[in-house]
Amino acid sequence: MNKKGQLIVVSGPSGVGKGTMLREYVKGRESVRYSVSATTRAPRPGEENGKDYYFLTKEEFLNRVEQGNILEYAQYNGNFYGTPKDMVEQALAQGQDIILEIDVQGALQVKEKSPGALLVFIMPPSGEELRQRLIGRQTEDEATINKRLAIAQEEMAQVQEYQYVVVNDNLDQAVAQFSHIVEANRSLVTNWLSENKSEYGFGPGAKPLK
Amino acid sequence: MNKKGQLIVVSGPSGVGKGTMLREYVKGRESVRYSVSATTRAPRPGEENGKDYYFLTKEEFLNRVEQGNILEYAQYNGNFYGTPKDMVEQALAQGQDIILEIDVQGALQVKEKSPGALLVFIMPPSGEELRQRLIGRQTEDEATINKRLAIAQEEMAQVQEYQYVVVNDNLDQAVAQFSHIVEANRSLVTNWLSENKSEYGFGPGAKPLK
Repeated sequence: MNKKGQLIVVSGPSGVGKGTMLREYVKGRESVRYSVSATTRAPRPGEENGKDYYFLTKEEFLNRVEQGNILEYAQYNGNFYGTPKDMVEQALAQGQDIILEIDVQGALQVKEKSPGALLVFIMPPSGEELRQRLIGRQTEDEATINKRLAIAQEEMAQVQEYQYVVVNDNLDQAVAQFSHIVEANRSLVTNWLSENKSEYGFGPGAKPLK
Repeated sequence: MNKKGQLIVVSGPSGVGKGTMLREYVKGRESVRYSVSATTRAPRPGEENGKDYYFLTKEEFLNRVEQGNILEYAQYNGNFYGTPKDMVEQALAQGQDIILEIDVQGALQVKEKSPGALLVFIMPPSGEELRQRLIGRQTEDEATINKRLAIAQEEMAQVQEYQYVVVNDNLDQAVAQFSHIVEANRSLVTNWLSENKSEYGFGPGAKPLK
């Protein structure tokens, strides 16, 4: 309904399968794509600027932060990672939906800077199921799994900061539910009202219809 | 996701085609049905109590209103028409979605009494298009059409009381959009959180997941 694209923020605990769900959702949908992050880390062999990441110097990155041109960012291992606002807004203006797969802290930053963003949280069917999935990976020891679970628990407790929850029990159902949410959000009254109201005889500049 | 059904309130100006859209939506969906209204008017030949209407005496109706057992009501030509709360809640508890096709005044009453209700407003593609549709019916004179348009304009100006807008430009698209909204609403965080949170290690009674 809106011609502008939607900024879609997706979070969820490690092990919930949000990456798999999003890849399945994006597949075959031309009007949606992942945001390309900016980073200050050095490109790895084969990585392309503007495709894998926007590679910036630390100074360039921090200048962008200062100018309010980074929607959210975080520091890992001494490098900055963030979402360039201008790139996102350019894509949205072209009618593209943009997906940001980020953690809760990042999502809260986006929520503050882009109040129109759609925030979706991916939940496991239960806490116990999440534990089973993490154990099933067989890549981590018990202490690491327990640490991940404690973080997951903290993240899940912030779900009320999001607008929608998708419980990832069955992949196809989760993708369908995510799709319903993205489509429905286009006709949320608050989004719809930001378009032209005078067409309908109300809002600024409206004239009687008769 | 919720096992409980959803109460779905649908309004829109006369001529917008909401009845056609809803009939198309309900067709083939077993988990949704229209609410049966209560009325104090006399049954017409062939009308069945509990199917077409719940036929009540004026005293019975007003007793129900007093007991808070009518979700919304209005008076037309000396008769009362309203939505029986117990019937709606019984159906919702059985997992049925219930559709109320009512005017803005009725919708506002439901919103107050059932804050969890989903409110959807059906809009024409434009005010001018609505006028053309009303003219196209060729059943009314210009004065009547202008009166309908003035009422429509007042109703449309209250769209911000609703959660979602469906623009009825193309019937199939409108039905699809309506369906997205109904499905997405099941995973709205506020609805989802009313279910058991302790499953996820947060909320009352939650224990650490590890």
